[in-house]
Amino acid sequence: MSSPVLPTRGRVRPLGLARVSLTGGFWHERQAVNATATLAHCEAWMERLGWLANFDRVAAGSTGPDRPGWPFSDSEVYKLLEALAWEAARTGAPEAEAAIKRLTARVARAQDPDGYLNTCFGHGDQPSRYSDLENGHELYNTGHLLQAAVARLRTHGEDDLVRVARRAADHVCRTFGADGRAGICGHPEIEVGLAELGRALGEDRYVEQARLFLDRRGHGTLRDIPLGRAYFQDDIPIRQAQVWRGHAVRALYLTAAAVDVAVERSDDELLHAVERQWERSVARRTYITGGMGSRHQDEGFGEDWELPPDRAYCETCAGVASIMVSWRLLLATGNARYADLIERTLYNVIAASPSPDGRAFFYANPLHQRTPGTSADPDEVSPRAEGGTRAAWFDVSCCPTNVARTLASLHGYLATGDDDGLQLHQYVPCAISAELPDGGRQAAVEVETGYPRTGTVRVRIASDAAAPWTLTLRVPAWAAGATLTDEGRTREVTPGVAEIRRAFRAGEIITLDLPVAPRFTWPDPRIDAVRGCVAVERGPEVLCAESRDLPDPAALDALVIDTRAGLKDGDDTTLVRALLPAHPRGAWPYLPHRAAPEGDAGWLNLPLRPYRSWAQRGPTGMRVWLPVSTPHPEGE
Amino acid sequence: MSSPVLPTRGRVRPLGLARVSLTGGFWHERQAVNATATLAHCEAWMERLGWLANFDRVAAGSTGPDRPGWPFSDSEVYKLLEALAWEAARTGAPEAEAAIKRLTARVARAQDPDGYLNTCFGHGDQPSRYSDLENGHELYNTGHLLQAAVARLRTHGEDDLVRVARRAADHVCRTFGADGRAGICGHPEIEVGLAELGRALGEDRYVEQARLFLDRRGHGTLRDIPLGRAYFQDDIPIRQAQVWRGHAVRALYLTAAAVDVAVERSDDELLHAVERQWERSVARRTYITGGMGSRHQDEGFGEDWELPPDRAYCETCAGVASIMVSWRLLLATGNARYADLIERTLYNVIAASPSPDGRAFFYANPLHQRTPGTSADPDEVSPRAEGGTRAAWFDVSCCPTNVARTLASLHGYLATGDDDGLQLHQYVPCAISAELPDGGRQAAVEVETGYPRTGTVRVRIASDAAAPWTLTLRVPAWAAGATLTDEGRTREVTPGVAEIRRAFRAGEIITLDLPVAPRFTWPDPRIDAVRGCVAVERGPEVLCAESRDLPDPAALDALVIDTRAGLKDGDDTTLVRALLPAHPRGAWPYLPHRAAPEGDAGWLNLPLRPYRSWAQRGPTGMRVWLPVSTPHPEGE
Repeated sequence: MSSPVLPTRGRVRPLGLARVSLTGGFWHERQAVNATATLAHCEAWMERLGWLANFDRVAAGSTGPDRPGWPFSDSEVYKLLEALAWEAARTGAPEAEAAIKRLTARVARAQDPDGYLNTCFGHGDQPSRYSDLENGHELYNTGHLLQAAVARLRTHGEDDLVRVARRAADHVCRTFGADGRAGICGHPEIEVGLAELGRALGEDRYVEQARLFLDRRGHGTLRDIPLGRAYFQDDIPIRQAQVWRGHAVRALYLTAAAVDVAVERSDDELLHAVERQWERSVARRTYITGGMGSRHQDEGFGEDWELPPDRAYCETCAGVASIMVSWRLLLATGNARYADLIERTLYNVIAASPSPDGRAFFYANPLHQRTPGTSADPDEVSPRAEGGTRAAWFDVSCCPTNVARTLASLHGYLATGDDDGLQLHQYVPCAISAELPDGGRQAAVEVETGYPRTGTVRVRIASDAAAPWTLTLRVPAWAAGATLTDEGRTREVTPGVAEIRRAFRAGEIITLDLPVAPRFTWPDPRIDAVRGCVAVERGPEVLCAESRDLPDPAALDALVIDTRAGLKDGDDTTLVRALLPAHPRGAWPYLPHRAAPEGDAGWLNLPLRPYRSWAQRGPTGMRVWLPVSTPHPEGE
Repeated sequence: MSSPVLPTRGRVRPLGLARVSLTGGFWHERQAVNATATLAHCEAWMERLGWLANFDRVAAGSTGPDRPGWPFSDSEVYKLLEALAWEAARTGAPEAEAAIKRLTARVARAQDPDGYLNTCFGHGDQPSRYSDLENGHELYNTGHLLQAAVARLRTHGEDDLVRVARRAADHVCRTFGADGRAGICGHPEIEVGLAELGRALGEDRYVEQARLFLDRRGHGTLRDIPLGRAYFQDDIPIRQAQVWRGHAVRALYLTAAAVDVAVERSDDELLHAVERQWERSVARRTYITGGMGSRHQDEGFGEDWELPPDRAYCETCAGVASIMVSWRLLLATGNARYADLIERTLYNVIAASPSPDGRAFFYANPLHQRTPGTSADPDEVSPRAEGGTRAAWFDVSCCPTNVARTLASLHGYLATGDDDGLQLHQYVPCAISAELPDGGRQAAVEVETGYPRTGTVRVRIASDAAAPWTLTLRVPAWAAGATLTDEGRTREVTPGVAEIRRAFRAGEIITLDLPVAPRFTWPDPRIDAVRGCVAVERGPEVLCAESRDLPDPAALDALVIDTRAGLKDGDDTTLVRALLPAHPRGAWPYLPHRAAPEGDAGWLNLPLRPYRSWAQRGPTGMRVWLPVSTPHPEGE
């Protein structure tokens, strides 16, 4: 069955990509742009920058000191291969198939006879193999190779890419197995690659190698670095850790592998440890967008409650990795909270990254931009992960290919099945069918919806069932007041899941109505950085204000919101009432008395738009968190 | 005359270090600890780490690939030499004199015949001279050498160190003069070193070389880097810049040189450009402590209003550099606002860095520490600039020697003179004398005060004057309600300066009373990160709360202050009334309704202490900005 993740057990099961197809709407459009623009865009950039030629030079024995790209540039080729594999299966597009063969051939030729494959180490004058586990990213690269092979194996079957990956995995097991060197990679990823390849090939020793890497970590196995061992999660064993910390993508890739190992080994202790880490990290170290990673300095999680909106790093890749973790936990437990976070992250991190044309990307996803960025040159590599505008490519360009592989396989994350029925987690126009065990029951549905713009989700039954089965619909945590209509009866359903169990007949329609009207959302008072502010959400989308909608862009620094006036949906914006006080322009910004607004520069209706589309109309200031008017302090 | 800065013109003049001596109090104690502990501590660490031996190896022609230390480690030796020179003159301590000779001999032997002096470039297999102007720090190192030579020249006269510096400066002028290579250094410092050495030696061509470096900058003279050219102020010419940006220490060293050049060239356009940059940067990019530099990522200024208390970098060296700038502007203009900022920075940045024993230092000076750090091992190099505890030494250890040279020359920053009298800028127990021109008038005073613990400053006249002269006393900006008592009459004086002009007689006492009672200070509403918070100041000191004073350290995250209850001075703390609400422990921290406190865990008297002494009792959480209770939002 084709699916990025296929655990051997779990509360619910992936349906397989062939069982779900998008039929319209926002994500269908994103998949189309990904297929027609992003994939070729990524290949062209990697060709232009020599990241692909690095493989040719290893094959030709002509490596030199001028190798272009970072040590992890190989992984971008593998992530693109993974995306192409999902895409080839999704549409059967011959260009994708051709690209896979083209890239695989170049990659394969660079593999050493013993299975080692890397363009930055181990050839000619390059540093020797595994001579810099902290920073070298060799096993990280291999992990992405294995994930690409899994995609190919599950959508196509064994081919050169799979054979290359198998040899590479064997080399890793020989080198770092129980009897080998007790090393780990500074950037986790090999673990999740090995676990999935092991599942895909039925090779348990790969899963075991993943477990070994996992349990070796957290004991100071790597050298200390200025950022500290927490940076690469080598400070505390994963079973003992309480919360995610350090580099966000590393922490999340590692956690995804931990779920895989926990499931394959029926290791409930490990699974529960990860669930507790998820709970605390989501409660205290996650942005309202679902974004993770507060700090630019180490691309890492900050402390509990350290969630600055302006300096939010919220790397796009951390969003991808967060979905990897939550999807695995959803499969293991069936708990709807994981699907809630996936939805939030999809709409407010993943969807925010690519431009509408699929040829520019956000790397960091801050929630507050004070000064408009400058438009990025579409022909230039952006050295910076920030800047307030989407860039065609980056010096460190992990995000475009990560977005590409996620979009190409997105239909795999919408629904699951179990022995008794079908669970819909995300509401996207699509067609889904599942084969239920015990009697060959067919559970097929078509979802019709304008969600998230509108809240009505129609699930049309597309198959007759002689025996009853259960249709489970997620009710998002924010959707208090949602209703479910079935067989002419409407009932209120509470956040979590709503279930209907009966013998469905083709043509029947079940309607879920989700209240997507815009709403104010208040932060926990312990999040210091947004004290006295409110956000506006609309369904699963976080909204934001852009300075380009204001007569004076600087007003975005100073305005205050009047929450009493409520929110009003316009055609394509949501309006909130804002006051622009005339602030005193002090020479020193810390005064003995809080300055009361000295007069009103006037009221205005501030238009809010989905955060994911910010800066699409050009460089702009932006803020998600809007200050609310607070009275003059008492007694001052 | 001995003084770190001696402009040839300006509204007021330095008095010279020999004219001022501290006679007691906090800073006198800091100077003593600096002399007896810090100077030897710095030399011992640099010996241990091989930073001194780097000079020996160049002299011996035995440089190798394993050179210890960063390319800028030479500068630490020079900053220590500068500190020793000031210290030797302050006390005549033979140890300081011996150390100068010892270090100078090792430095001098490493100088190349043509004057080039650097232990990281240009010898053996090292990269060639000036092959990496962006990162190599060669001219930066030389700049500190020149500053050290200035200290020696002005306190002792020409010696080997001065001769070494002169040859090095000549080499710089030959290499980078108007007919030479049009390069600049990635880290400004050579400019301020050249300008002062030019003034000290009467060599105008050094000043001219500083001007040349200054005007070359800002035109993309250096290569672009991932952090952007603003990082090293090569984005905009200094005459056109509106505000300080990029790496804070670089921006401020450059600005100090700009004032020097503006003054020496009577270039009012440049001086006013710098004054405008100071104004905007102080109004919008400066912490209440006087700390500068919001970002860890690039040790840099953030955007306007980007002043997060928890991730405040506020490098100690940026505090030193800020004083360098403000002192030069004070000399040029006489404006008391510059002395205000110097005082704030002295008490809340410079004084915060060293431990009471002078053997451990803060590098970063955040205003909020969420989790207590771990005690630093006094025998280990700290790889990190942060961590919530003072460290004995750092991998990048610029701050200890910068504190040392500032403390050793601190008496130079307290007072100035002009043709008509004496200006007291800082209130420290001390004895001051100045020779006034026109008639040999002597203006000598002794300052007696317990400031800032108490607000009474007694200025005792120590010389008889036949002719009148003017005594000018700074009234800090926060000191509304201050009074001045002279000849039995007390009058209110407003912030700025208070002047008395008459023929003073020895024994007379002028008393300035400054209201140092603790006060609430509110932030500009545009500083998003501290919205809804208040700080408490007491005289020039910013106070803070430490979690170790709370029964439950986590309470520091959640408590709110009741400003109506006022502030109460205890023996060594200031008390504020705080409420500890029982916060809901949500699984998701963003809720549709603002959670009203669900009940009171109780009121408590929260003790506040000077920020500068935080973590002196051990690792602790800490916050300067205290949340104030805000009502439930209307209509929610």
